[in-house]
Amino acid sequence: MNTKENSLELMKTRIIHSFRWNVDVLSPLSEELEIPINEFEEILINNLDMSSLEALHATFESAKSEFLMEKLRCDLSLYWLVDVLKIISTEDYNKLKSKLLGKVAKGEEYEIVLKFAKKEVYHLLKK
Amino acid sequence: MNTKENSLELMKTRIIHSFRWNVDVLSPLSEELEIPINEFEEILINNLDMSSLEALHATFESAKSEFLMEKLRCDLSLYWLVDVLKIISTEDYNKLKSKLLGKVAKGEEYEIVLKFAKKEVYHLLKK
Repeated sequence: MNTKENSLELMKTRIIHSFRWNVDVLSPLSEELEIPINEFEEILINNLDMSSLEALHATFESAKSEFLMEKLRCDLSLYWLVDVLKIISTEDYNKLKSKLLGKVAKGEEYEIVLKFAKKEVYHLLKK
Repeated sequence: MNTKENSLELMKTRIIHSFRWNVDVLSPLSEELEIPINEFEEILINNLDMSSLEALHATFESAKSEFLMEKLRCDLSLYWLVDVLKIISTEDYNKLKSKLLGKVAKGEEYEIVLKFAKKEVYHLLKK
């Protein structure tokens, strides 16, 4: 590996080691996919170029919100309630979604947002 | 409640008590949303009419597959790997999806499909 490649790899490693990458991407994905963290880190460094990492840097927060909303959708079985059974209307779902995205954007913890969301779903089902 | 309403409610209750409704919808949703099963059953009966239940009966298998695919997408963090980091290509993702849907359609257990899917994702990341 020449000096240029070496310094590029170092820059990529630094980004991936940053706090938010570690907490939001590296640790949870390595755990969920059952891939040792150092091996998963190597996969990321080999597969991502600097321009992807820089582009992502700018959109990281919106990517994170989108992902947490997808996770909430799963954990609340919203596919069944909204899309299949249609016992929560699209209008109510959109209102709920923006409420939850607001909480996520404020940095509230996932488990706390999920607990709040379950109560909201309960009220929508009972109304 | 008159006799007609009574018999309609009985028919709806029978559908919701059927094995596949119980295993795929009633029990998991009641557990995930932390709503007691008898209360959740009541919510379903109050919110669903016979025509929705009959329409759903016909599309139940495809709804179930779609839901399991959404769950697999969450549990494999495919949003990060495919949509954000783009370290799995859309082409590879579509091939993986149809492989997994095939297994789901054959009635393989979710945990077994998830285990298989993690191995497939690992190979895609290492290729």
